[in-house]
Amino acid sequence: MSQTLQIEKANELKNKPDVSTVQFGTVFTDYMFTNKYTPEYGWSEPSIIPYQNLQLSPSCQAIHYGQSVFEGLKAYRQGDDILLFRPDENFKRMNQSLSRLSMPEINEENALNALYELLKVERDWVPDGEGQSLYIRPFVFADEPFLGVRPSETYQFSIILSPVGGYYGATQLNPTSIYVEDDFVRSVRGGVGFAKVSGNYAASLLAQKKANELGYEQVLWLDGVEQKYVEEVGSMNIFFVRDGELVTPELNGSILPGITRKSIIELAKHKGYTVKEEKIHIDDLSEDLHNGKVTEVFGAGTAAVIAPVGRLNIHGVDYIVNDNQVGEISLDLFNDLTDIQYGRKEDPFGWVVRL
Amino acid sequence: MSQTLQIEKANELKNKPDVSTVQFGTVFTDYMFTNKYTPEYGWSEPSIIPYQNLQLSPSCQAIHYGQSVFEGLKAYRQGDDILLFRPDENFKRMNQSLSRLSMPEINEENALNALYELLKVERDWVPDGEGQSLYIRPFVFADEPFLGVRPSETYQFSIILSPVGGYYGATQLNPTSIYVEDDFVRSVRGGVGFAKVSGNYAASLLAQKKANELGYEQVLWLDGVEQKYVEEVGSMNIFFVRDGELVTPELNGSILPGITRKSIIELAKHKGYTVKEEKIHIDDLSEDLHNGKVTEVFGAGTAAVIAPVGRLNIHGVDYIVNDNQVGEISLDLFNDLTDIQYGRKEDPFGWVVRL
Repeated sequence: MSQTLQIEKANELKNKPDVSTVQFGTVFTDYMFTNKYTPEYGWSEPSIIPYQNLQLSPSCQAIHYGQSVFEGLKAYRQGDDILLFRPDENFKRMNQSLSRLSMPEINEENALNALYELLKVERDWVPDGEGQSLYIRPFVFADEPFLGVRPSETYQFSIILSPVGGYYGATQLNPTSIYVEDDFVRSVRGGVGFAKVSGNYAASLLAQKKANELGYEQVLWLDGVEQKYVEEVGSMNIFFVRDGELVTPELNGSILPGITRKSIIELAKHKGYTVKEEKIHIDDLSEDLHNGKVTEVFGAGTAAVIAPVGRLNIHGVDYIVNDNQVGEISLDLFNDLTDIQYGRKEDPFGWVVRL
Repeated sequence: MSQTLQIEKANELKNKPDVSTVQFGTVFTDYMFTNKYTPEYGWSEPSIIPYQNLQLSPSCQAIHYGQSVFEGLKAYRQGDDILLFRPDENFKRMNQSLSRLSMPEINEENALNALYELLKVERDWVPDGEGQSLYIRPFVFADEPFLGVRPSETYQFSIILSPVGGYYGATQLNPTSIYVEDDFVRSVRGGVGFAKVSGNYAASLLAQKKANELGYEQVLWLDGVEQKYVEEVGSMNIFFVRDGELVTPELNGSILPGITRKSIIELAKHKGYTVKEEKIHIDDLSEDLHNGKVTEVFGAGTAAVIAPVGRLNIHGVDYIVNDNQVGEISLDLFNDLTDIQYGRKEDPFGWVVRL
């Protein structure tokens, strides 16, 4: 991004929808950020343009060979201010994903500035309703028209914006149900599980379907080697309250290093909780659910922030967690984290960027 | 595909290139096949249209969540006839890939007929030089404009065509070199390794780069669980000649079930070779290379057909195979298989479709 950011004006603007009735991820704003990479000039065409279709060759590398990574974060409104939550962490992780797929890294500072500029143009799109936000989707994909297994020579980096309510359609926390998958595998050490790459999600859909058919909302994945250790939920990390302490699987290369996960760990420690990152054997978890040592379970991710788990199926046995009610610690962390994100509470960590 | 195949004429046709100077996968013909899937009508818009860009939403599901599968096969020219090699097997495998990624299956018979019609329109594009062919790339991808982890509701199925010489730029068989990867993992049982999905290829690039930097042309993958058993090469299956017998890893869910692999097994058996599909421990392979029991190694895939391996690095030790020369059995099988594909020899298997 050696060049100056160009802005191309749209001829007309869309009508803004009532966000409370909008389905997550279906409505997009008037503008998008885009930049192009060539071997000669690197990332050299940063611009904000009217939201528009991509023109891609039918032999586009991303479609055929999957060089495509993305990020997800949110902008929150507090009066006239727009708040972002740790956006630097997203671009840092994006570079880790890019590196894993042999794609060129972006300049994190330039990307942050581009995002800020885009949000200045689109600030009226950040909704102010309870639990509402502007979902931000940065993504990079390979666009070289070439059939063959080698890295693409050219890429596109875009940021698109979508006004959203709660991810699961509700602003209230409703406990979800989870099926522990012991047949399908999401990832294994040495693979791409730690990276936010498109292929990981397509590969997860069949297990998700199976869980749905069995009556559960989401999948809890086990490790790919032994199929014994807890890894993560479909699109969230997982936490347990065990003997009053917070426990989550340690990062191991196949688990996505969630920014919400990281923030909850830091927030919980700050609040005086003991937090442990460790290998969690599924049989130990069953035992601890059975004997009541595990009192709360929740997922953590950008879309839902915290998603309490009320029911968990392990090897065919259903465990009800905390009477299928939102737990006290889950709620406490959810409130604190969202209060910081929406600017309702002081941010002692320097996480919030205010525009 | 309940509707009739529509054909839209191109205004002008491209100049056909000298295929001997064309880089693999960079030149495409005048027309492409396309069909669209909607939940209401299924695959209902089959048409042959001028080769053109895809118009995709920036929130297109395939780019973000990787629902994208493909196939690869070739059309060969013999005089005025166009020959295809087991095209039914490609559409059968495509359906297995689609099913694994929760994508709607295609009608295999309709797909074959669509391919035949496209080749009738484009038959002048099938080159007649030594080792030349028309590479055929069927692919299906998700195009719903929606951000969220669930299967897309809409899809596109396309077939594009590219005239090619040899995959590795040469018409002669030149032994390749292979690095056995024991850090990165391609796939694991319960994953998507057996399916021809875009994400598998992006995930393989970093190991490929590492192998190249170490002075090897390709990667040989080990299994994802124990990292001890031989699986496949980057974009090919692998065969060994051991004590005069042909040996290849048995299919296990993480290995791609290659059509060239299958054809070599059937052809070799027909020719009287003993063929074994088994688990091959990497330490046994080293031992057998060291003591001379393994006399030939070759990769097998659509692009290269047979690629002899002259050098193999296992845990830091280089093994030279057959003095880095093309082996007798490799050459025998290569000649027989390509003779059948190009119609130079009788096809006792019913593999060839003549248009």
